[in-house]
Amino acid sequence: MDDGTLQRTMLFDFFGDLLTEKQREYFDLYYNEDLTLSEIAANNGVTRQGVYDIIARAEKTLVEMEQKTGVVKRWRETYKELERAESMARELLLLSDRNSEAAELAGELVLALEELNKNGV
Amino acid sequence: MDDGTLQRTMLFDFFGDLLTEKQREYFDLYYNEDLTLSEIAANNGVTRQGVYDIIARAEKTLVEMEQKTGVVKRWRETYKELERAESMARELLLLSDRNSEAAELAGELVLALEELNKNGV
Repeated sequence: MDDGTLQRTMLFDFFGDLLTEKQREYFDLYYNEDLTLSEIAANNGVTRQGVYDIIARAEKTLVEMEQKTGVVKRWRETYKELERAESMARELLLLSDRNSEAAELAGELVLALEELNKNGV
Repeated sequence: MDDGTLQRTMLFDFFGDLLTEKQREYFDLYYNEDLTLSEIAANNGVTRQGVYDIIARAEKTLVEMEQKTGVVKRWRETYKELERAESMARELLLLSDRNSEAAELAGELVLALEELNKNGV
């Protein structure tokens, strides 16, 4: 996933419920289902321009929400650091003696950080 | 900080910029500066009821934003797990031999998680 796509996915994930139903639907069809504007227009009996306007308004709302809250930025910064923490924990696991208390604890820590990192995107 | 206060602080932290200037100002004076409704009213030449209404509307917006985004809930869940990870890393540091590579790495990991946890509230 390139950075622009990731950013859009996270904006939609956090703020999607602030959009109107129509905005959410067209946004999803266009970006997640990869339909073209013309296809969405034809399926819904509206003009291509109409679809474009609705998606553009949705994007404006998402971007404005991020400007005012910084949620996605903070979330992404946290998870960047968390990935770093996870690799350190993995390295610690490799360094610790097999079957030692430290190895067990390092293993548990790796799992906890791995689990957290699943929520990153 | 009790749980209700923490929750309110985080809601205001994430979503405060979505409030009007007046809502933000009164909310801050009341909850953070601990002024009474009557004091805020007197200082601003408005009625106590007027101040109350503005703060109530601010709270409604913050709660609705959370209902639609779940930002604070996700944030708090993440940081609860991160605190657990930090104590595991501390324990690993205690278990590792002084001056060993593992000790150095565990120390670095503790610092990284500590730093992350500072952003928790």
